[in-house]
Amino acid sequence: MNQKQLVGEKAATFVEDGMIVGLGTGSTAIFMVQALAERVKNENLSIVCVSTSKATEELAVSLGLNMKDLSEVDEIDLTIDGADEISPDFHGIKGGGGALLYEKIVATNSKKNIWIVDDSKLVDTLGKFPLPVEVVPFGSEHVFRKFVEKGYQPEYRKDDADTKFVTDSGNLIIDLYLNKIEDPKTFANELKSEVGVVEHGLFIDIVDQVIAGTATGEIEVKTK
Amino acid sequence: MNQKQLVGEKAATFVEDGMIVGLGTGSTAIFMVQALAERVKNENLSIVCVSTSKATEELAVSLGLNMKDLSEVDEIDLTIDGADEISPDFHGIKGGGGALLYEKIVATNSKKNIWIVDDSKLVDTLGKFPLPVEVVPFGSEHVFRKFVEKGYQPEYRKDDADTKFVTDSGNLIIDLYLNKIEDPKTFANELKSEVGVVEHGLFIDIVDQVIAGTATGEIEVKTK
Repeated sequence: MNQKQLVGEKAATFVEDGMIVGLGTGSTAIFMVQALAERVKNENLSIVCVSTSKATEELAVSLGLNMKDLSEVDEIDLTIDGADEISPDFHGIKGGGGALLYEKIVATNSKKNIWIVDDSKLVDTLGKFPLPVEVVPFGSEHVFRKFVEKGYQPEYRKDDADTKFVTDSGNLIIDLYLNKIEDPKTFANELKSEVGVVEHGLFIDIVDQVIAGTATGEIEVKTK
Repeated sequence: MNQKQLVGEKAATFVEDGMIVGLGTGSTAIFMVQALAERVKNENLSIVCVSTSKATEELAVSLGLNMKDLSEVDEIDLTIDGADEISPDFHGIKGGGGALLYEKIVATNSKKNIWIVDDSKLVDTLGKFPLPVEVVPFGSEHVFRKFVEKGYQPEYRKDDADTKFVTDSGNLIIDLYLNKIEDPKTFANELKSEVGVVEHGLFIDIVDQVIAGTATGEIEVKTK
């Protein structure tokens, strides 16, 4: 069994009967959603799920999970999602899959957040993974140019047809190739305050627990 | 001649041959666009214009102005726009017309910004005019509830059919009935840092010059 499947299945065991559960997006989250659907069936759990993307919504519906819109629930009890990088102080980069905005909205409306990763995502310093920034299309070339001038090495996210990737909200994504983010909190504020920036992939003080798989097949659960 | 027409025509005289000009949105801006089109015709000016909304774009095209996308120009020389409130220290509230996001993107990419108003818009303290906040539809009910809890008296902007108004970017607008904004800079940062908020109507340190009409037909030009 690969690491993604291991941690996905482990994470599904944290869901309790009666919970409202946020479902993440990406290859690791897929395993979690599948394992969760199994548990619901086998244990006859009564849970409500909220999705972070159109892709996850479709998968969850196909597996028979009881889905609601975020607008229909008061607060989410637990959200389980993947991550692209996690620092020792529990900050992270997300958005490699392009769903960072909805993921962050769901996460900030959750009482508890668990991230599931293989241990290659546990890093000393954030920034090796390109940091996605979701921007309004109108005027995005000017935001892009500012990023160039600041040395952030921006690149527009492209889709398979080599045209600009469009998010579920109709925005564009600019990936910043920073290599190292010295002060993630300050940088997060700087990015978000920029006119035209809708959201960015720095998740500061959001995750509570990390479930990491290792090459030897062990699972490490880290709590903040 | 009404005040809006007076200041609109006055503002158009600030445009110089060869300029790239940002065109605002709203009833006062319409007079400015009309006066500018007249000047271009009569004086054979060679200018390029960038619009802040679909409505202004259509008007300007119908009047024969030379329009470009924001993406096609390096920097705008001068943007002329209306405003809903202006404080003595040259901060303001904009967005009554629902175009605050594009207006702010154009304004922050302009070397100089002139606002044209009747003098009822010159206030001692910002906040009597409802402050528009542009939000991502997904999860907007949760942002709305936070605003309620904080006492900001939010209301969704509605269109004529009494359904939620949708911006040119596909977002919603929540108007905050604050009555008084004690510290606009701090409040602007607080709003923009909220997950799900795309932009807000507080324009801090953006306008350079204000052209205000008075009931007696005089025009006051104030420079920061």
